[in-house]
Formats: sequence, C-alpha cells, structure tokens
Amino acid sequence: MVIKYELIKEDPRTKARLGKITTPHGTFETPVFMAVGTQATVKTLVKEDLEAIGSNIILGNTYHLWCQPGNDIVREAGGLHKFTNWDKSILTDSGGFQVFSLAKLRGDIKEEGVTFKNHKNGKSMFLSPEISMKIQNDLGSDIMMCFDECPPYPASYEYMKNSTERTIRWAKRCLESHARKDEQGLFGIIQGGVYPDLRKHCCEELTKLPFDGFSIGGLSVGEPKEMQNEVLDYTTPLLPKDKPRYLMGVGSPGAILDAVERGVDMFDCVLPTRIARHGTAMTHSGRLIIKNKKYERDFTPLDSKCDCYCCKNFTKAYLHHLFKADEMLVYRLLSIHNINYLLRLTEGIRNAIREDRFLEFKEEVYKEYGLNDNDKDF
Amino acid sequence: MVIKYELIKEDPRTKARLGKITTPHGTFETPVFMAVGTQATVKTLVKEDLEAIGSNIILGNTYHLWCQPGNDIVREAGGLHKFTNWDKSILTDSGGFQVFSLAKLRGDIKEEGVTFKNHKNGKSMFLSPEISMKIQNDLGSDIMMCFDECPPYPASYEYMKNSTERTIRWAKRCLESHARKDEQGLFGIIQGGVYPDLRKHCCEELTKLPFDGFSIGGLSVGEPKEMQNEVLDYTTPLLPKDKPRYLMGVGSPGAILDAVERGVDMFDCVLPTRIARHGTAMTHSGRLIIKNKKYERDFTPLDSKCDCYCCKNFTKAYLHHLFKADEMLVYRLLSIHNINYLLRLTEGIRNAIREDRFLEFKEEVYKEYGLNDNDKDF
Repeated sequence: MVIKYELIKEDPRTKARLGKITTPHGTFETPVFMAVGTQATVKTLVKEDLEAIGSNIILGNTYHLWCQPGNDIVREAGGLHKFTNWDKSILTDSGGFQVFSLAKLRGDIKEEGVTFKNHKNGKSMFLSPEISMKIQNDLGSDIMMCFDECPPYPASYEYMKNSTERTIRWAKRCLESHARKDEQGLFGIIQGGVYPDLRKHCCEELTKLPFDGFSIGGLSVGEPKEMQNEVLDYTTPLLPKDKPRYLMGVGSPGAILDAVERGVDMFDCVLPTRIARHGTAMTHSGRLIIKNKKYERDFTPLDSKCDCYCCKNFTKAYLHHLFKADEMLVYRLLSIHNINYLLRLTEGIRNAIREDRFLEFKEEVYKEYGLNDNDKDF
Repeated sequence: MVIKYELIKEDPRTKARLGKITTPHGTFETPVFMAVGTQATVKTLVKEDLEAIGSNIILGNTYHLWCQPGNDIVREAGGLHKFTNWDKSILTDSGGFQVFSLAKLRGDIKEEGVTFKNHKNGKSMFLSPEISMKIQNDLGSDIMMCFDECPPYPASYEYMKNSTERTIRWAKRCLESHARKDEQGLFGIIQGGVYPDLRKHCCEELTKLPFDGFSIGGLSVGEPKEMQNEVLDYTTPLLPKDKPRYLMGVGSPGAILDAVERGVDMFDCVLPTRIARHGTAMTHSGRLIIKNKKYERDFTPLDSKCDCYCCKNFTKAYLHHLFKADEMLVYRLLSIHNINYLLRLTEGIRNAIREDRFLEFKEEVYKEYGLNDNDKDF
C-alpha cells in the first residue's frame, strides 16, 4: 500500500480513534482536517502560511484543475506538488461531486460515464472512471478518489440502489485503470444514501478491493444532522480498522466532533476559506461577523484564545476596516485564522483521544462554541 | 528636526545623490522607493512580505484613511503604525491630491480650504491645512505633507500663480498648526506647474521655513516626460542640499532614473501594486503580461534575474493559471515581485552612485528594460 495507516489508539468510550497516515509526501496524525485548494491554491495562501499553522495535507479539485489549467499542463510542470510549490501531502477528489452538483449542466449518466457542460465555457465534456484516474495520475496527488456518483438528498431507494451498484462497478474500473499504483494511493467511496442495506452492500463490495482507504460520500448534501450521524453510526463499523476513513466535504466544528466520535479520521471543507471571504471568523466563542459595527473600535484580537498570525498581529478594528474598505488582505488573514481554528480543533481532538478525555473535550467545544442540536452551523 | 538627512555622496557627473534619512521609526538610504498603502495596507501584503524585500518606508493616504476607518479610530488604535502592525517608517500625503484629482466632486477652492464630496458616499466634506495636519497628527506618520493644491496639466500661468501663492500661504498654516513637531516631520511641497519663475518663487518662500524636507508636486499629472525632466532641472538646484527631496507619485523605472539624475531622493507610486492587479509584472527585460497565452506552459520564473519570493518559488505557468482562474493569490505574488523590482532598482542606483557609475547603470537599465524616449511607461 502506498498509503500507510497506523491505528495508535481507540477511545474506550466511543469509536473515536487516533491514528497516523504516511503518504509519499509525509506523515501526519489523524483525525485531520484538510484545507481545500480548489484551483491549485488554498485561496490567498502560500505554503509558508499553511506550514505555520501545521497543515500537513491539502485537497485539490480534479474537476477544476482539469478545466483550468488542464491536467496536461500540471503533468508537464512535474505534478501538482511542483506546480503549486507544496511539498507535503495532497488529496484529490474524483471530479464526480462537481459534475453532479452542477446538476443543471449534466447530461445523462451512462454506464460508460457522464457527459456534461463545462461550468465556465459551456463546452461539452465527458468524465468516466478511466478519465478521472488519468487526470488524477497526471496531477500526481498522494491520495486519489474513485469516480463515483454522489446523488442529492433525498433520492429514492430505487435510484440509490442503481446508483450505488454503478458506483461499485466504477470503483473496480478505477482500480484497474490507476496507472501509478506505486506512487499514488486510491480510496474507494462508500455510497448508499440513507439506506442502511445499500451502505452495507457498498462497504462489503468495496472493502474486498485493495483500496488504501475509504471515503464516506453522499453525506452533507442537505440531509438533517441526525441522519448524517445515523449513517455514520452504521457505516464505520463495516470499514476495516487498519485503513483511514474520510468523510467528504465536512468541516464545521460540530460535525467534525460528531463524526470523530463515530470513527472518522479525515475531513475537508471549503467552509473556513469561504466564510473568510464573507468576513466570518470561527472563534473559540463561536462565529464572528467582522463587518459588524461593534468591532469598529475593538482593539482586541479576533480570538483571544488563538495564536495564529492574524490574532497575534491584528485587532478586530483593523480587520473590520479592511473588510469595509474591500481590501483583499482581510481574506488572507481570516483564511489563516479559520483554517488554524480547525487544525487546532483536530489537534485538540487528537490530544483528547490520547488522554482518554474525548467526550469531555467534545462537550467543552460544543459549549464554548455555543453549538446546540438545532444549530444550522453545527 | 525630527527627520535627519545625511548627504553621503554626490555623483560627480550628475546631480544624483546618495543619502541617508533617519525618522522616528528607522534609518534608510536614499534614493528610496516607497510602496503605497492607501487604505492602511499595501494591498494584499503584510509586514513580513515587505520586510523580506527590504522595504523601510511605506506611504499611507490621508484622504482615504480619513474617510475609512477615520483618523479618530486610527488615533485610538495608537496610530497608523500600531493599527497596521508596521513598525518602520510611514509617510502620509496631505489628502490634497485626492481631493483635487476627484475633480468632478470638488466644490470651490477657498482661502480657508476646500469643500468636496466624499467619493464613496457623496457626503460633503471640508479639508483645510489645519484639518490635514490634525488628521496626519492623528495618523502619527513619520513624515507628513503640507496641504497644497495640485492643479492639473495644463493650467494657465494666471491660475498657477494664484494657486502657488495660496499653496505657500497654506504651507505656513500647516507649520503653525502641526501639533506634534517633536514626533513627526513635515515636508513643504513645491508647486508652480511648468513655470520656472513660479517654481523658483515657491522654492524661495518654502525653503525659508523650517520644513524637514521638500516635495516636488504637480508633476506626473499628464505633462510630457521632457517637461517633467525640465522642471526638475531647474527646481532641485533651488532646494537645500541638507534636506531630502521627494518627487510625488512617480514610480516607473525610467522616471525614477531620470529624476535621480536630477537630484531627487524619494519616490512613491501605486504602479507596482496597480499593474499587479492587472496581471502585469515589471521585469529586467521590461513589462510582462502574465495572462498572455504564451506563458501557459512556461515553467521558468517570471524574471530569471529576480530573487523575490514569487520568482524563487513559482513559474510563469502557475502565475498564468492563477490569473486565468481569478485567484487573488496572483495579486499578492505579483505585488511582491513588482515592489521588489523597484526596491532593487533603487538599491542598484544607490550602489552605482557609491561606485561612481550612475550614468552607466542608468543606461544599462534603460537598455535592459527596453525603455526609450517614446516609451509611455518610461
């Protein structure tokens, strides 16, 4: 296996686990949060910014990189690591989520693959398991994802059954066409919606295959929070203990804590950088909207418990000013802060598991952040 | 004098001079280029970015900071240095240039001051020598500018005569109302348009007063290049040798070289950051438009002779991609590169003066950059 997973410790009271992943570009402990670098950059940031907050693995979006600059150019540059000057680990998705989430643009799903229109120029494009593997091989990520269908919520049982079966067939084709097995790992993606027997069937089929890890897909697509937790409750026990588990597209503090409790190791989300661009910070006392007039003369840091570059050097009043003045620097500073928040959260989770106090830690964060079960941002 | 100027060496063949300025926030050699931080930030950059390229003094715009966040807030923050987390020197303009350049918005110019409308919300505002001093005292810059009128080119002799006389009277009022003479220096601004006797008169009157240095205003406002050089030819000899001379708003490589040759010490311009936002880089072989398709697969640095962070870590192909993908990071990287270009240019100028080869250096840069007398970017 190109990707090594070491299970360091299991929480005695929950399914939470402390582990360690080694990729061709480094080793890091799990649970881990991965910042999203959609278009070959974690928006506004460079390597040094990410290293300073302890980021060991970031995500690249296959669909976006395929469209711009094109996987051929990234390959010619020597791969995504060299192109972007990032020498730690990179995970790429399969492109499937983007193709299916740009639903209005998509053509029919056929056994062979999906025809759809490029979201920027309307050009017709075709994506299949083989093409997704080829693009990801060109990008040269450390961890690749199988090309799957990610149906929206709700989807009928019938639809989901057909879709899941196809996703399983596609997963086999991905494994077969993956051309750089010695250099890049490949995760299978568990689909099945909110139907326990379909999730079970998908787990059974995919875990027979030599994947480096397993992603749990089709969640965080509009279903209620309880349902997400329920799916995790019955899905993670069906996954092997010696391989990493990745919950795709999840990155709010509450959802990370809930999923770790249910045995998930890896997370990614555009949340920290996206809300940064809207002037929102994740802090130890919850979300903070920097454009709020009350921060105009607030000469204290964004988050007094935070030690990131933004909090060590700037005040809320300065960030408020930058936001009102439409200065791009504020997105850079808030992105550093928000990603750091999630990296420190996952670091706190790891330490809590190590010290047998995960549930206490979770409760503490929920309380501190002002999270409750009805919280939409959970 | 709060601002100390030491004349280190005069070029034996031209009026070029190597000097050293000490402000309450540090010492630096001249000729010097100052990056512009209009709204309390050199767009997209932080202190560390500027320090890494050897920036010792930056500029803040009084008009913009007065409008947003307001000088009261900056004062309460402890001044512009503390507000922005920049602990080296800061120069502020008087606000006059912005008031007069937003010409359609301005009301009449009266002896007392100018009434105009805020360019963002249309609110009526009034700026006078006393108010400009009050704002700059609140900002706490190291070097302040007198409030002057900067008429456009062309202006009639009659108009310019009246305007220059008023600028002289305003300069006296600035000196009188400057409330922090022990902490902040103040420069007089030489106006007079393209009329030698008016420039001479202004120099004679202002050099009688205890200013820390002199700015040459009213240039780079649309007049031909030869005329700018001509004005400098007869103006700088009328300024004292023991005080710094600042040519406001000039920052293209050719214009800097020409002005240094005529005895100017300080420069500022939005050029490097503004063209960065349009995807243009200043390189040793001239301007480079990064969106040009020919850079799509160019895996070499922007400028092979440059050692900035951007050139050390990224290729033209990557920058081209970021620009096409509308990623803000490209503005940050090109801003670093362009400011570095001008800081290295002025460093090269200083070394050339030190080593008696200024004219050779000038010719070399002109040739290398592809500058010629008809060059609009001169």
